[in-house]
Amino acid sequence: MASSTALKGIFLSSFLAQDAHTSSSLLYPFVTAARQSSNRKFTRITAITKDKATNEIEHLERVNGSPANTLKYSGEKPATPILDTIRYPVNMKNLCVKDLQKLADELREEIVYTLSKTGGHLSSNLGVVELTVSLHHVFNTPDDKIIWDVGHQSYPHKILTGRRSRMGMIRQTGGLAGFPKREESEHDAFGAGHSSTSISAGLGMAVGRDLLGKENHVIAVIGDGAMTAGQAYEAMNNAGYLDSNLIIVLNDNRQVSLPTATFDGPAPPVGALSQALTRLQTSRKSRQLHEVAKGVTNKLEDQTHEVAAKMDLYMREMVGGNEACIFEDLGLYYVGPVDGHNVEDLINVFNKIRSTPATGPVLIHIVTEKGKGYPPAENAPDKMHGVVNFDTQSGKQFKTKARTLSYTQYFADSLVAEAQRDDKIVAIHAAMGGGTGLNTFQNQFPKRCFDVGIAEQHAVTFAAGLATEGLKPFCAIYSSFLQRGYDQVIHDVDLQKLPVRFAIDRAGFVGGDGPTHCGAFDTTFMACLPNMVVMAPSSESELMHMVATAAAIDDRPSCFRYPRGNGIGSILPVNNKGTPIEVGRGRVLKEGSRVALLGYGTIVQSCLAASELLQVLGISVTVADARFCKPLDGGLVRQLAKEHEVLITVEEGSIGGFSSHVSHFLALNGLLDGNLKWRAMMLPDKYIEHGSQSDQIVEAGLTPKHIAAKVLSFIGDKKNSLHLVNL
Amino acid sequence: MASSTALKGIFLSSFLAQDAHTSSSLLYPFVTAARQSSNRKFTRITAITKDKATNEIEHLERVNGSPANTLKYSGEKPATPILDTIRYPVNMKNLCVKDLQKLADELREEIVYTLSKTGGHLSSNLGVVELTVSLHHVFNTPDDKIIWDVGHQSYPHKILTGRRSRMGMIRQTGGLAGFPKREESEHDAFGAGHSSTSISAGLGMAVGRDLLGKENHVIAVIGDGAMTAGQAYEAMNNAGYLDSNLIIVLNDNRQVSLPTATFDGPAPPVGALSQALTRLQTSRKSRQLHEVAKGVTNKLEDQTHEVAAKMDLYMREMVGGNEACIFEDLGLYYVGPVDGHNVEDLINVFNKIRSTPATGPVLIHIVTEKGKGYPPAENAPDKMHGVVNFDTQSGKQFKTKARTLSYTQYFADSLVAEAQRDDKIVAIHAAMGGGTGLNTFQNQFPKRCFDVGIAEQHAVTFAAGLATEGLKPFCAIYSSFLQRGYDQVIHDVDLQKLPVRFAIDRAGFVGGDGPTHCGAFDTTFMACLPNMVVMAPSSESELMHMVATAAAIDDRPSCFRYPRGNGIGSILPVNNKGTPIEVGRGRVLKEGSRVALLGYGTIVQSCLAASELLQVLGISVTVADARFCKPLDGGLVRQLAKEHEVLITVEEGSIGGFSSHVSHFLALNGLLDGNLKWRAMMLPDKYIEHGSQSDQIVEAGLTPKHIAAKVLSFIGDKKNSLHLVNL
Repeated sequence: MASSTALKGIFLSSFLAQDAHTSSSLLYPFVTAARQSSNRKFTRITAITKDKATNEIEHLERVNGSPANTLKYSGEKPATPILDTIRYPVNMKNLCVKDLQKLADELREEIVYTLSKTGGHLSSNLGVVELTVSLHHVFNTPDDKIIWDVGHQSYPHKILTGRRSRMGMIRQTGGLAGFPKREESEHDAFGAGHSSTSISAGLGMAVGRDLLGKENHVIAVIGDGAMTAGQAYEAMNNAGYLDSNLIIVLNDNRQVSLPTATFDGPAPPVGALSQALTRLQTSRKSRQLHEVAKGVTNKLEDQTHEVAAKMDLYMREMVGGNEACIFEDLGLYYVGPVDGHNVEDLINVFNKIRSTPATGPVLIHIVTEKGKGYPPAENAPDKMHGVVNFDTQSGKQFKTKARTLSYTQYFADSLVAEAQRDDKIVAIHAAMGGGTGLNTFQNQFPKRCFDVGIAEQHAVTFAAGLATEGLKPFCAIYSSFLQRGYDQVIHDVDLQKLPVRFAIDRAGFVGGDGPTHCGAFDTTFMACLPNMVVMAPSSESELMHMVATAAAIDDRPSCFRYPRGNGIGSILPVNNKGTPIEVGRGRVLKEGSRVALLGYGTIVQSCLAASELLQVLGISVTVADARFCKPLDGGLVRQLAKEHEVLITVEEGSIGGFSSHVSHFLALNGLLDGNLKWRAMMLPDKYIEHGSQSDQIVEAGLTPKHIAAKVLSFIGDKKNSLHLVNL
Repeated sequence: MASSTALKGIFLSSFLAQDAHTSSSLLYPFVTAARQSSNRKFTRITAITKDKATNEIEHLERVNGSPANTLKYSGEKPATPILDTIRYPVNMKNLCVKDLQKLADELREEIVYTLSKTGGHLSSNLGVVELTVSLHHVFNTPDDKIIWDVGHQSYPHKILTGRRSRMGMIRQTGGLAGFPKREESEHDAFGAGHSSTSISAGLGMAVGRDLLGKENHVIAVIGDGAMTAGQAYEAMNNAGYLDSNLIIVLNDNRQVSLPTATFDGPAPPVGALSQALTRLQTSRKSRQLHEVAKGVTNKLEDQTHEVAAKMDLYMREMVGGNEACIFEDLGLYYVGPVDGHNVEDLINVFNKIRSTPATGPVLIHIVTEKGKGYPPAENAPDKMHGVVNFDTQSGKQFKTKARTLSYTQYFADSLVAEAQRDDKIVAIHAAMGGGTGLNTFQNQFPKRCFDVGIAEQHAVTFAAGLATEGLKPFCAIYSSFLQRGYDQVIHDVDLQKLPVRFAIDRAGFVGGDGPTHCGAFDTTFMACLPNMVVMAPSSESELMHMVATAAAIDDRPSCFRYPRGNGIGSILPVNNKGTPIEVGRGRVLKEGSRVALLGYGTIVQSCLAASELLQVLGISVTVADARFCKPLDGGLVRQLAKEHEVLITVEEGSIGGFSSHVSHFLALNGLLDGNLKWRAMMLPDKYIEHGSQSDQIVEAGLTPKHIAAKVLSFIGDKKNSLHLVNL
């Protein structure tokens, strides 16, 4: 139980609030009492011990010497005397607050330096160096569990947990993953990549701990963007009910954390929740509160705990009501806001909660800034969320000039072209305006573009609702994120045959983001749905025609998948306006004999490249572009089956997708009963790690050489076959 | 703008609060002001016009003559003089409140009478008769859109929108659907079956209306159970942000709305949100408030609107703070609680909101009772949520005595048997303790069973978290509901190779619930995942062995699917304790020649039955039970392929599943290159409507006769083949 001296501390610190953004970047912890639920057992947390005088002096020191002003980004390898002594968190335990703050600064410089060479997620990591240092100082991983939601902010954590020397290879083939990964370190309690899973996982760990009679702490670190996803709410609701000890750190950096601003200016946070969080912050920063607090705390001299508790409630009413209540309604004990760049405050809060038994679920609301301490990131519209290598002094990224644009951009441009001719076309994305290219659409049609936050479930059903009104919604979601709206695709769209168009970006391999973001399964899980038209373009011009096709399909749902990466340089339609393709009609690109390659999606280009390799060897193969997985071009498949000895289907997708649809068509029509040899080339039955997309495609065995080798193996040319794959 | 007289109304009615549950079941509307968000344009709703004197007289009348006391359930067809005049909602417009209340009573009697013959969802419909009557009196469907979340409470809506005469065939083959269905009526604005989609769909309709410059109203009716799902939160957050006019009716009946108590006693609502809702109710019912209100309203005589608004805020502080704030934090304008069985109050609230321009999103919190007015339902532990035909006087259901138990129960019994020997086994379900059988487990192991609410996403990741701690989670989720946790299955479980066991109930056809609940896609979407073991038992004893198998698989995730319906009478293992099956090992059940039937799941029994039919015709076929889709028993498939002319794979699942895995194995091993004929029998590429499971399986072409006919077609016996399917 807190002493009366300690009790003073909280109210002092609670109300010494400053404007977080304009003057000092300092917010002091404010600990409130959650409404007592009937099964709540926790002891009130009412004190953060702190000496006022020391505090105010330090406060001024920090304001005058904030990291942003002193850190140097010369491009030289920074001196890191403290960091050099830290290999594992155990080495941080005896550092004083001053040294921990220095350690945070060193981490910040090291991350900027390292990522200027490697690229990766930058600003999210700069925002959490103080948090990471404080967590690892107070808690003891791997016994205590820290779960990084999404996980792109785990670089300082990786550096402090034995992986510093390998940071130069982060996200590269054979190197460290860009996200937490259980296989990589025992300090990575839970893998991530997709958002909003940390509270669920943490609650499972907390309940598991209780069942096994263990005593460790579980900390889930989640951003305000990730808080917009339904799963976070489901988990908080359950955590409040189960009342197991669990620490949730809400890392509020006042923007949806994903790169919504890649192409354009900053995207303001969407969703009403962000307004609630802003209220929580602003209500604490008024100068008036300072005066109120003084008056109240004077009255608190020598008061008992009970009186203090009453005053706590009283003051909450004085200062503007129960702003914390969305969390409290969900049964969490709310603490905050806390300055997430102030190591001392963070350590005080964490220590207090760590030493308090039976807290139940606690939510600590910290406020941070993405890109903190590195001016180029702080000032960039997208906060330099994800970067390639760059110049440390200017922050200028060394982007290679490409001959063509990304498939994403071709999608966006052609959708704009459609929308210019049809005002019923609207666009929906889930916090991915940059990633999906829809910021381009938004610029042209601000009232017809909807960013729903990280909320794929809602995005899909919302689009279905729009479709019932006769609008023509294009719902642009990455392949791996569409998994999160799958039930809605089935139940709300396909079953009702509503014409929602799914633009499935990042289909197939995605490079550095690795298996969490690999679009492996979409053809499998979409093509089994009875009413869905399922397409994949073989080039950017085909993509534009498929956007036009989807716009024209108004009696049922449709989807089209396209990859991460740039177009092949195909000739674009005039003004980017595609022409609808006949639904269910593929095409032969190259006539050959004996062997037919039937590709689905951009891998058709690899089939063509394979045919070039084979041509050199004097072998002519047919190459066809299926275009549609569903409805399948039965005439084309039949023709290929009848006119060739071997039919090889090729796709950058998992089992159960395009090749399965072909095989069922072949079987149903008796085309497999004779001597046709059918083979499927597709993604292997394993997850392929992060690395370059080209390395990934090699590992999958889906390069032009692999395809050519497969053909050679059928025509008995084993020598050339082996030669090709060993090249 | 409201007049000062009108303003009086609100405060009077706001504070004439009574205890909803112990005395009068009356709660009066209390309209509060949401915090003004920066982009909020709405006019304050501050008045429900109502005359105090009339009100209090009627109040007494209603208390003394509540429906529960006067309605008769004799088993005779009830007299329904008012209902007989209503064919469409337009016929209700001129009815007075008294007649509307009578209409509600008649609906209640009619529903009890009708369902006593047909079965169906009973208590949810009895709970919303007043709501339905009031909505259709005030709003004008189909121009206005009413969206029934889940939709099992749409029976009175169906009766009032032209479908009364067809109610006798509800949920039966060729009859009305048990859920709203767009194809069925223009008054069904959005189909449902799964929960928590209504706000998303409604928001889409509202935004679509705005884009098209239309003026209609959109009303989403959602239960407190459905509110626990993340999608509802995602949608509210987005609604608060977009600020389109949308009416959300929160139908709070103080329990998770799904049949969590089928087998056992009542299940209390889970999740902290339910506590918040309870607080909202209790804070309004204190007698003290009545006195406070009197004092305040006296001061309000002749006050202006502005003063009234201030008083509104003042009073909210007086009466206990901002209990509504979870909704207000999400940007909704909260109104309530309102007695959901009081037609007059409901009409007043709806009329007020209907006539107020630019309200933005409004949440009207109504309180109802499941089974209201029908004592047997009110008193039943499960509120008679879903019933077969029953005696109206006693409520006793005419359940047919089955020789065997349901697969659900065999699953539960064998899981209990495993858990008795292994205290690491824990069970998770999503508001489906009855439906999944886990109430049986809960009774035995209350601390090892977790009902997370309608929250499949969280359920899956929560289970993953438990698995990281070394526990052995069994996550029991219906096939069609697992679609909602699909990303979590991939990202949190399979990718991390965590040993979560998925018990997939309701695989295949489910009868009256129809296509929304049909478990068609699970094998397709689970078997494409690299680390997942995918199984299906052919009988209840096999199910028990697979539960043991899953318990033993501790190095990767696994799943097993089993159907709705009862076991076949196979001999159970001693004490229900199964023996682990070798992973990836199928079995031959019957040796034959020429043709092999390879079944996956309980359809193996139909393969055996088909073989009996064929035996009569002198044809002997091999029947094998695959048991595993993944890893596939390659040895068995190879043997069947080599020793037969024809191999037919049979499954009650969609394309991309078991048969696709077999075909890929066959192709990869060159087994399709010769003269083997492979055919797949599976679910057809369409949604099959509600009806009896046996009708559904006929429509799918998967009966023993269909299988036998397929075999006959291969051996050239066309006459018998046609004869069989025409039987």
